[in-house]
Amino acid sequence: MIKRTGATLIFENMPGIIGYASVAGKKESEGPIGELFDKIIYDSRGGGETFESAESELQREAASLAMDKAVLKPEDIELVFAGDLLNQCVASVFAAKGFGIPYVGQYGACSTMAQAMGSAAVFVESGAANNALCVTSSHFCAAERQYRFPMEYGSVRTPTAQWTVTAAGSCVLSLEAREAPKIKAASFGRITDLNITDANNMGAAMAPAAADTIMRFFSDTNTSPQDYDRVFTGDLGLAGSYILCDLLLRAGFDIRGRHSDCGLIIFDRAVQDVHSGGSGCGCCASVLCSKILGELVQGSLNNILFVATGALLSSTTAQQGKSIPGIAHLLNIIG
Amino acid sequence: MIKRTGATLIFENMPGIIGYASVAGKKESEGPIGELFDKIIYDSRGGGETFESAESELQREAASLAMDKAVLKPEDIELVFAGDLLNQCVASVFAAKGFGIPYVGQYGACSTMAQAMGSAAVFVESGAANNALCVTSSHFCAAERQYRFPMEYGSVRTPTAQWTVTAAGSCVLSLEAREAPKIKAASFGRITDLNITDANNMGAAMAPAAADTIMRFFSDTNTSPQDYDRVFTGDLGLAGSYILCDLLLRAGFDIRGRHSDCGLIIFDRAVQDVHSGGSGCGCCASVLCSKILGELVQGSLNNILFVATGALLSSTTAQQGKSIPGIAHLLNIIG
Repeated sequence: MIKRTGATLIFENMPGIIGYASVAGKKESEGPIGELFDKIIYDSRGGGETFESAESELQREAASLAMDKAVLKPEDIELVFAGDLLNQCVASVFAAKGFGIPYVGQYGACSTMAQAMGSAAVFVESGAANNALCVTSSHFCAAERQYRFPMEYGSVRTPTAQWTVTAAGSCVLSLEAREAPKIKAASFGRITDLNITDANNMGAAMAPAAADTIMRFFSDTNTSPQDYDRVFTGDLGLAGSYILCDLLLRAGFDIRGRHSDCGLIIFDRAVQDVHSGGSGCGCCASVLCSKILGELVQGSLNNILFVATGALLSSTTAQQGKSIPGIAHLLNIIG
Repeated sequence: MIKRTGATLIFENMPGIIGYASVAGKKESEGPIGELFDKIIYDSRGGGETFESAESELQREAASLAMDKAVLKPEDIELVFAGDLLNQCVASVFAAKGFGIPYVGQYGACSTMAQAMGSAAVFVESGAANNALCVTSSHFCAAERQYRFPMEYGSVRTPTAQWTVTAAGSCVLSLEAREAPKIKAASFGRITDLNITDANNMGAAMAPAAADTIMRFFSDTNTSPQDYDRVFTGDLGLAGSYILCDLLLRAGFDIRGRHSDCGLIIFDRAVQDVHSGGSGCGCCASVLCSKILGELVQGSLNNILFVATGALLSSTTAQQGKSIPGIAHLLNIIG
């Protein structure tokens, strides 16, 4: 049964995350959580011909590993919820087509993993699916080509710019009773637009959306930051994280002591030259499906919020001078 | 309660389509069902500055009209399921941001309307939403610019090419008991790829997906074409429709007497120079939210299948010589 309180959905049976996996690229393997990824693909073309096909390969590997860990085959899965940053979400399409699982394409930019898992949780909790697969990805080279090409020769990245992560994260949701982290609640976010137009400062575009969703969730559930071990956002980077903490503090919620951003977890800013931190659908998905779920399984975390944020721009709207709408979807996951 | 039989979901309470509306462009207004659209926007920029903002305007108008007809305000709607063909689905984003409704972005190319309505039906049936809004769109000029620019001067369209429809369709799903068409069942489709690489023959790329979903639905529900007043596909066009009927006939299902394709309903091929017919997320959405739902309300139709098809390509994959994966999602709607 799903109970609705305000904009928050409470799952009484709590879909379990019975398998999860992450696959990442070379630069990510050199970061602080590099050893936690299930597989590293060192070649930026993944042994294939294009960056785009490599991104599909990241998804395919992550999904296969997640299904393996759940001891399930593709034919045991009723639905796959997948999405990515590429135009028309083609990384997901070319990854999923081999599995033969009915496909429900998601698009929420870098918030896609939380959107996919929130939707899949509704399907699983309601009996519309017994097992549902979620997978998202991003790839630095595919994203750079799509969003930033052509660049001026010798152009310099700004301090607020983020680095698109090459990675995929995948998990299987199920009501089958097992020892697994469980999704207790979900809040789908509203589109928030404070007229940020700088595509090199997406943290600023997304932070107000994260604040909006987090505040609504605290209000809906009558809880406060102190009720959670950790609030993970993804991917606000350093600049966006400051703004989020500031916005929440002004509203009376102090998350500073218990907030981490996936874009700051995956890279070491001091040595990896990623400016404000990591970003991309694969960033928070791969951090969730390695470090965060791992700590929930081990018991060092028990009750967390996972708030994935997305910047809903395209290069067309950016070139037309339009603002960058942001969105954030929230999951409450317990160990 | 949702009952699962094979890949098909049966909705016991049957979410009702309590409001629906369509908005179309000038060329569409001159077609056979031009008088059935709720509103026509004659200017291809919709009074705004760009084709893309005009596409958002189509969605905004269609959604507003659908909510008006459902006698609901945006604050009465818990979730909006929306998507379109533009890179990163920006037409939907810029349309939805004004409503302030939590947003779940969908991507299924031209199948998006059925995917959105199928997902929304699961949310409504399970209590995750009381009222859910679905809206999709396409815009000829925005699509041409994105997919086909730059074109050789004087290039000729092939007979199998389809014409992207300028239109949006929107509907509100709810369990509130009213006299309204109802969603009885849904089947989400698998990605099907028979290695079609001709972006000017998307009907051929999508027809196998439609056949796959329709055959699975007949098998899951133990029904046959004769059990339905009409099987509407969208948007296979003339070439794709021939292939679909042929594929189904070989499998023992003769839909020829009761099949209509939304791409052939919206335009008069004899006089409107659209080659194989209409296409785009807005094509089947606007035909559904005008003619089809209208006939279900009036009673000239009572039990139909709505099978929206999508070609999951991007211009990047097309230029890389990749195949065009197809998908089809099916809804069984009763009057």
